[in-house]
Amino acid sequence: MGGLMDNLEEAATAIKMHDNFVLTTHINPDGDALGSLMGLGLALLNAGKNAVMIMPHPIPVAFQFMPGSRQVQKTSDVLARFDLGITLDCTDITRAGEEAQKVLQRAGKLLNIDHHISNQYFGDLNVVDPQAAATGEIIYDLLLKAKMPVTSEIATNLYTAIITDTGSFQHQNTTAKCLRTAALLLDCGAAHRVVQQHLYEQRSLESLRLLARGLESLSLNEEGTVAWMTISRDSLYSSGAAVDDSEGLIDYVKSLKGVEVGIVFKEVNPSEIKVSFRSNNYLDVNKLAAHFGGGGHERAAGCTINGELGDIEQLVIRKTEEQLFAMNENSGGPRK
Amino acid sequence: MGGLMDNLEEAATAIKMHDNFVLTTHINPDGDALGSLMGLGLALLNAGKNAVMIMPHPIPVAFQFMPGSRQVQKTSDVLARFDLGITLDCTDITRAGEEAQKVLQRAGKLLNIDHHISNQYFGDLNVVDPQAAATGEIIYDLLLKAKMPVTSEIATNLYTAIITDTGSFQHQNTTAKCLRTAALLLDCGAAHRVVQQHLYEQRSLESLRLLARGLESLSLNEEGTVAWMTISRDSLYSSGAAVDDSEGLIDYVKSLKGVEVGIVFKEVNPSEIKVSFRSNNYLDVNKLAAHFGGGGHERAAGCTINGELGDIEQLVIRKTEEQLFAMNENSGGPRK
Repeated sequence: MGGLMDNLEEAATAIKMHDNFVLTTHINPDGDALGSLMGLGLALLNAGKNAVMIMPHPIPVAFQFMPGSRQVQKTSDVLARFDLGITLDCTDITRAGEEAQKVLQRAGKLLNIDHHISNQYFGDLNVVDPQAAATGEIIYDLLLKAKMPVTSEIATNLYTAIITDTGSFQHQNTTAKCLRTAALLLDCGAAHRVVQQHLYEQRSLESLRLLARGLESLSLNEEGTVAWMTISRDSLYSSGAAVDDSEGLIDYVKSLKGVEVGIVFKEVNPSEIKVSFRSNNYLDVNKLAAHFGGGGHERAAGCTINGELGDIEQLVIRKTEEQLFAMNENSGGPRK
Repeated sequence: MGGLMDNLEEAATAIKMHDNFVLTTHINPDGDALGSLMGLGLALLNAGKNAVMIMPHPIPVAFQFMPGSRQVQKTSDVLARFDLGITLDCTDITRAGEEAQKVLQRAGKLLNIDHHISNQYFGDLNVVDPQAAATGEIIYDLLLKAKMPVTSEIATNLYTAIITDTGSFQHQNTTAKCLRTAALLLDCGAAHRVVQQHLYEQRSLESLRLLARGLESLSLNEEGTVAWMTISRDSLYSSGAAVDDSEGLIDYVKSLKGVEVGIVFKEVNPSEIKVSFRSNNYLDVNKLAAHFGGGGHERAAGCTINGELGDIEQLVIRKTEEQLFAMNENSGGPRK
C-alpha cells in the first residue's frame, strides 16, 4: 500500500519505533542480498532489538564468512509474530520464498528495501532506489539516517554487498556515491582483504572446470552483437560443480569485443532453463526478460523458461536479435 | 639530490614556477604509468605551459583510448632542453629507457613522482608515497595542491591509473583514500564506462577459447597446495589466440582454494618452456625461479627452461613441492 512519503526518513523512524523485527531476502541469495540482510540485522541486534533473520535455505558456503551468517535462522522454525517485517533486495514478495512470505504477512507492517527498478512496491513502506548500486548502499544510508552505529561487522557485510553487485566496481552501476560509501565502509573497518579473498580467491577446481565447459560452448551471432553460453545439466554434473558456481559466467560472455548482449542459458532442472541477460550499452534487457515473464535492470535481467534447452536458446536469441534490430531501426537504421 | 622538504607542496610550487617541461614514465608502461603521464601532461598543457610527453615506444593499442595518447612523442625526436624533467611511476631513472634518461638529464631539474617502496630517490625533488595505490593518486593530490583544474580528460587518465594498479579495487593496496580519489575523479567526469570497456571488455573469442583450454589442463598436487596449467603450442594454435592472450591465466591457477603456488607452463617454442610462478602467502617463488635460472619477486617470478613440456612439468612440480616441504619442516612440521 505504498504511500507518497515512502522514503528513507520514514523507514528510519519505523526502525527506531519498533522492537520486534523479522528480516529476509530473496532465495538464491547473492552477496548484496545477504550483506543487506545481515548488515541491517546486526545493526538492529546491536541496538538491543529483537531481530530475527530468516532464510528458507542454508547460507551458501561461499558467503558463510560474512559476519552474522550463523545467526540466520531457517524460515520454517519461525512461528512468532513480529511488529515489522523487512524484505531486502526483493523485487517482489514472492522472491522471499513461500514460507518466508507467510511469516512476513503475519507481521504488523511490511518494509520493502530494494534497488531494482522492477520493484513491485509491495510493502506498506517502500524504500526503492534504482540509483543505488546495491541494496547494501541503501542500508548504509538508512543506518546513518537512523543514527545507528556501523560496526566493522556491519561494514564488512555492506562492503560485500557493494563489491558483489558492482563486480568490484567494474559494472556500469558504479557511481561516485557508491565509491564514497565503500570508502566510508573501509573507514568503519570493513575487512577488504577477507571479502576479496572469499569472493575471488577461493575457487574450486570444479568451478573452474565449469568455466572451461561454459567457455567451450560460447557462441556469437553473425553480426557479433549477441554472445551466449550454455550450461547443460551434463556440463554441470561432469564438472562436478555446484549450481552457484555458474554465477559470474555471464561476465565472460559480455566481455567479448563488439558484443552488446551476453546471455547464459542454464538448465537448472530438466526442461527448466534459467536465462540471464546482460547488455553493455543500449539494449534494455529488463524489457527483454519481461517478454519471457522475468525482469531485473536495464543492463542485467533474467527469466526462467520451461522447455528444451536447444529450443529455448533459439527462441531467446531470435527475440534478442529482433529487439536489437528494432532499436537500431528506431535510431536511424542498422548499425553496420 | 633529494632534500628534506621534498614533498607535494614543493612539487606544486615547482610546477607553478616553471614553464617548460618534459615528462616520461617507464618502459613497458601500464595504465598507471600512462595515466599519470598524460594526466599531469594534459594539466600542464591546459595551464598554457610547454609540456612534452615522451616515450621510447608507441603507446600499446590497449591504452590508446586514453585522452592525450596522440600527444605523446617519440623520445628520439626530442632534442630541446627543458626547465623541469618529470619521471612518473619510475623506481629508478633507468626505467625510463636510455634515450629518455638523456633528455631528462639535460633538464634543469628532475622531479621524481612515484609510489613504489623500492624507489631510488634519484630526483632533485622526490614525491614518493608508498601508501598511494597508484602514482595517479599522487598526481590528483598534486593538481589539487597546485590548484590546477582536473578536466574530464585528466580524470579519465587518473581513473585508469587507479583502476589498473588496484585491479579494479581488488588488490590489497585498495584504501579508503584511493576509493575517495576515484569517487572525486568520477565527479570530475572520468569516463568510468569507457575505461572499464577498454580495460576489461574487449576480449576476443580466441582468448576465451585459450582460457578454456588452459582451465581444462588444470592440475593439482595430492596435497592441493600446488596447482598448474599447461599451454601447449597446440592449444595456442587451435584456439587461434595470440601469445599475449595467455597473460593473466596464472591468476586463475592461484585463485584455487588452498593453493599456495600457482604455475603456468607455456610452450613458447618447441622445447622452450616459459614457466610463471605465483605464491599466495609464504613460498618465495623468486628463489624457486632462481633455481632454474630465472627470477622476480617473492610472490611472482618466472624462468625459461629448455626441454620437453611433460619432463619440465614433472621437474618443476617436484622442486616446488620440495621447497614447500622444506618450508613446512622449518616452521615446525608439515602443514597437514
